[in-house]
Amino acid sequence: MSMLKNPATKYRPAYKVDLPDRTWPNKAIENAPIWLSTDLRDGNQAIFEPMSVATKLDFFKELVRIGFKEIEVGFPAASQIDFDVVRHLIENDQIPDDVTPMVMTQARDDLIERTVESVIGAKSAIVHIYNSTAPVWRNTVFRMTVPEVIDMVKKRVQKVKELTDAHPETQWVLQYSPECFNMTELDVALQACNTAIEAWEAGPNRKIIINLPTTVEWSTPNVFADQIEWMDRRLARREHVVLSVHPHNDRGTGVATAELAMMAGAQRVEGCLFGNGERCGNVDIVTLALNMYTQGVHPNLDFSDINAVARVVESCTQLPIHPRHPYVGDLVYTAFSGSHQDAIKKGFDIQKPDAIWEVPYLPIDPVDVGRTYDSVIRVNSQSGKGGIAYILEREHGVVMPRRMQVEFSGVVQKVSDSTAAEMTSPALWALFEQTYLQNDESQPRYISHKVFDAEGGQGIEITVQQHGEISRLEGVGNGPLDAAVQALGIPMDIVGFEERSVGQGAKSKAMAIIEVSVPNMPGSKFGVGFHDNITTASLMALVSAWRRVDQSARVKTNQI
Amino acid sequence: MSMLKNPATKYRPAYKVDLPDRTWPNKAIENAPIWLSTDLRDGNQAIFEPMSVATKLDFFKELVRIGFKEIEVGFPAASQIDFDVVRHLIENDQIPDDVTPMVMTQARDDLIERTVESVIGAKSAIVHIYNSTAPVWRNTVFRMTVPEVIDMVKKRVQKVKELTDAHPETQWVLQYSPECFNMTELDVALQACNTAIEAWEAGPNRKIIINLPTTVEWSTPNVFADQIEWMDRRLARREHVVLSVHPHNDRGTGVATAELAMMAGAQRVEGCLFGNGERCGNVDIVTLALNMYTQGVHPNLDFSDINAVARVVESCTQLPIHPRHPYVGDLVYTAFSGSHQDAIKKGFDIQKPDAIWEVPYLPIDPVDVGRTYDSVIRVNSQSGKGGIAYILEREHGVVMPRRMQVEFSGVVQKVSDSTAAEMTSPALWALFEQTYLQNDESQPRYISHKVFDAEGGQGIEITVQQHGEISRLEGVGNGPLDAAVQALGIPMDIVGFEERSVGQGAKSKAMAIIEVSVPNMPGSKFGVGFHDNITTASLMALVSAWRRVDQSARVKTNQI
Repeated sequence: MSMLKNPATKYRPAYKVDLPDRTWPNKAIENAPIWLSTDLRDGNQAIFEPMSVATKLDFFKELVRIGFKEIEVGFPAASQIDFDVVRHLIENDQIPDDVTPMVMTQARDDLIERTVESVIGAKSAIVHIYNSTAPVWRNTVFRMTVPEVIDMVKKRVQKVKELTDAHPETQWVLQYSPECFNMTELDVALQACNTAIEAWEAGPNRKIIINLPTTVEWSTPNVFADQIEWMDRRLARREHVVLSVHPHNDRGTGVATAELAMMAGAQRVEGCLFGNGERCGNVDIVTLALNMYTQGVHPNLDFSDINAVARVVESCTQLPIHPRHPYVGDLVYTAFSGSHQDAIKKGFDIQKPDAIWEVPYLPIDPVDVGRTYDSVIRVNSQSGKGGIAYILEREHGVVMPRRMQVEFSGVVQKVSDSTAAEMTSPALWALFEQTYLQNDESQPRYISHKVFDAEGGQGIEITVQQHGEISRLEGVGNGPLDAAVQALGIPMDIVGFEERSVGQGAKSKAMAIIEVSVPNMPGSKFGVGFHDNITTASLMALVSAWRRVDQSARVKTNQI
Repeated sequence: MSMLKNPATKYRPAYKVDLPDRTWPNKAIENAPIWLSTDLRDGNQAIFEPMSVATKLDFFKELVRIGFKEIEVGFPAASQIDFDVVRHLIENDQIPDDVTPMVMTQARDDLIERTVESVIGAKSAIVHIYNSTAPVWRNTVFRMTVPEVIDMVKKRVQKVKELTDAHPETQWVLQYSPECFNMTELDVALQACNTAIEAWEAGPNRKIIINLPTTVEWSTPNVFADQIEWMDRRLARREHVVLSVHPHNDRGTGVATAELAMMAGAQRVEGCLFGNGERCGNVDIVTLALNMYTQGVHPNLDFSDINAVARVVESCTQLPIHPRHPYVGDLVYTAFSGSHQDAIKKGFDIQKPDAIWEVPYLPIDPVDVGRTYDSVIRVNSQSGKGGIAYILEREHGVVMPRRMQVEFSGVVQKVSDSTAAEMTSPALWALFEQTYLQNDESQPRYISHKVFDAEGGQGIEITVQQHGEISRLEGVGNGPLDAAVQALGIPMDIVGFEERSVGQGAKSKAMAIIEVSVPNMPGSKFGVGFHDNITTASLMALVSAWRRVDQSARVKTNQI
């Protein structure tokens, strides 16, 4: 089926909103919205391995640390895990007073009962009910007329009201979402929302959130902004309504859709960290927040160590973050081009600490998110022989993770800046050895180790030489690496580890690469170990990383 | 450095454009723009291993096949590879008559000479010159006043005119880009552009492209649309000017920026396939094109086999495409949620072949881009024991690539739909064996193989049993797999291969996974082989994939 067929007979364009007096294009975003993280609900429902109770509790804690005040915890009526998570949080008093959990349910009486039950005892709670209002869903999926849909909204909201009225110790908020709002006729969506507002008897201390999703993106973002401004002007009891949006990203315009919607009147945004969620994801709250930050508007969320947040999310969702993902990708603070590098260098030279940020090609100061600027030189790009990583892989079998490529490229850059010599392949390898493998007596080095069974895990006795002295250190952990970190007694986190065979047959060795982070050091450091024995290789990599952290600390001290 | 510090003193908001009578919010995109692919230039300059001559030539051919009529080939004055690529294309007559190559250069006389030299003999060519016009660049990087910048634009354009006038056999077009246009004062940008237009003496048969980039994204997309509409109203000799945009993606809003700019008057868009390019990338032309397609507007680009395009790009750039990338990611035609799956099923049931596309949750018919719809069941999500992939990995050491997870989940779905039984871990493994490893005599199976040296590569003699008969087949290729494909004589492309050890010590085996595609079959099929010998495992995987393609063809035949 070729695309050369004209799509005009198969696809229908999004409708336009008749709003010639729209005001949003004259506005800018001047305040942070209320943020709702749906990582534990919409994000969690779209991954191969849904999160366990323990993972959800960890993720919840991270969301609180970042600064979210509203967190959707799940679908307690549909999932025992979600029910257990909510109960655990409430019964163990793990929800701070200024944070409100939200629980979602379809608009069915039995599910509503179980959902309300899940949050009884919370200081405050948002009960989130939804039903799809768009024509295709009404006609194909539910086979209901508009009056039937409206009647259902009224009855289900009354049900929530009745159940929650019985528990006045909790500050209840209702959230109503007309699913597929963006594909719904505006008058039908308005009728559904105003029915929910009236049935909830919204008023002082009876807040309602009207949450308008682009369940499946369908139009350019300006059309959604028009839809939001149109609704904003017409919602009942407007002063008691929080107007919220829930953008998806099927057209790759989720961030813009949220931004224009905020300009059009949205007071609250639902999304996920780094854009997890069904299909192409929910809107990425990290990008939205940092977009505000770079415009001088405080987002009220803390991404000052963005790599740490990325690691939590990658580990909980088992999905990667793309190297070009705004603000966080491995390559976004990286300049490959010589003219960009030159401009950035000049910018840094004249940038004053308290002045407006004006470094060319860097939309944010990398330090503000715990990153560093990386320029990447091409060893030999004019001759077409390729980059550092390529040469090390082809000639030495060394496969570097992307962030390590960036790190080592910085090392190469410094040397080639000072020598102005062409970087040959043997010179590159020598520099790699000196950087990651050097083992002279002036620096910490691995000597030997023994492992033993210990109470509570794996024990290790590791012998290292440090500043000329030999020490024998003992530690216990989940495995040899963890135990060695304990033994060395350094506050290092292992944030990445990989090991593979290099070379073939009798000459084959294991190469281990470890990435560590240390409190108060931005970014991370890599260490490398080579050995026939895979455990030894990994311990040598750990000591290599330790040495490099140690050097970096000493360099900083010398500078002061 | 915590983000809790107020950013208002460090970052400056983007300026607003005074354009109360803007018209773009009332418009929609009704025609495809002229597309310019900068994959070989902006894309190529931002990857670790810049493309070789051969890779660039392959990529060029793919861009022509897709339907691009303007292709930026590189920086011939700065790179010998780029010079050689342009010369090769021209001298070997590899540029179709309706395709125009573009070559880029900084605005310096010596570079301009070499650049024009690179395209002599082409039927048509675009010479692209640029200089940065934004205040930070003027003040920090180049230390030039506005009059000095304007004077430089005039002299350099005159230089291009003088050099190209000497070669009237080529249809010359000038492209001028005020780099960092989006951060430049509008009156300065206009003065620079109009200076270029006048110096080029734009007129009939003397076309000029004015290309306005968001070199580093800085504002919400509506501000850029205002900037474009403002310029559109004021450009000199407007009827001889093609107004072009070059959006980047630092704020994650590149696609929206391009779309609103088109509504505001942009006639041409520069970008990369899947959004490669400096930092967060250039705008993704695939998403832009398919966004139009789903609105009934033909983009004049052919993405009817989107996986094949993705493979070319991934192999040339060595960068992955994210599983949630619009239209192409591994997970975007995947429904995890039961209610979504139910709605999609109902939608497919009533969708008529010639009717408007109305299947819920699927913004495009997957068949239009050579994909299939995949629902993913969670084996045991209610009990929290996790997904199929998780169970196979944890209990059997099988690590499936993501697309294979989707494929196998479809197999599981069919079985659990028909049996309504809970899918236990042993049942899952039995189904995996039956799907990928079954080796009964009714189906093609691997018996043995021998490899030998052959002229032109590696020879293989592979013995297989097919429909009861034993055949001994010979082929020659780059390696054993390639040779075996030749021997089997089937039109299969191997699009993915991975192998790893499963189990430890004496019990350890190699597990090979092969993904193949076959002409006229949408999507791809996976095959699996287990064996002590890694070559044998890979050949068994190949035969497994062949068997599965064969079954799938037979199922289709039965249906007719």
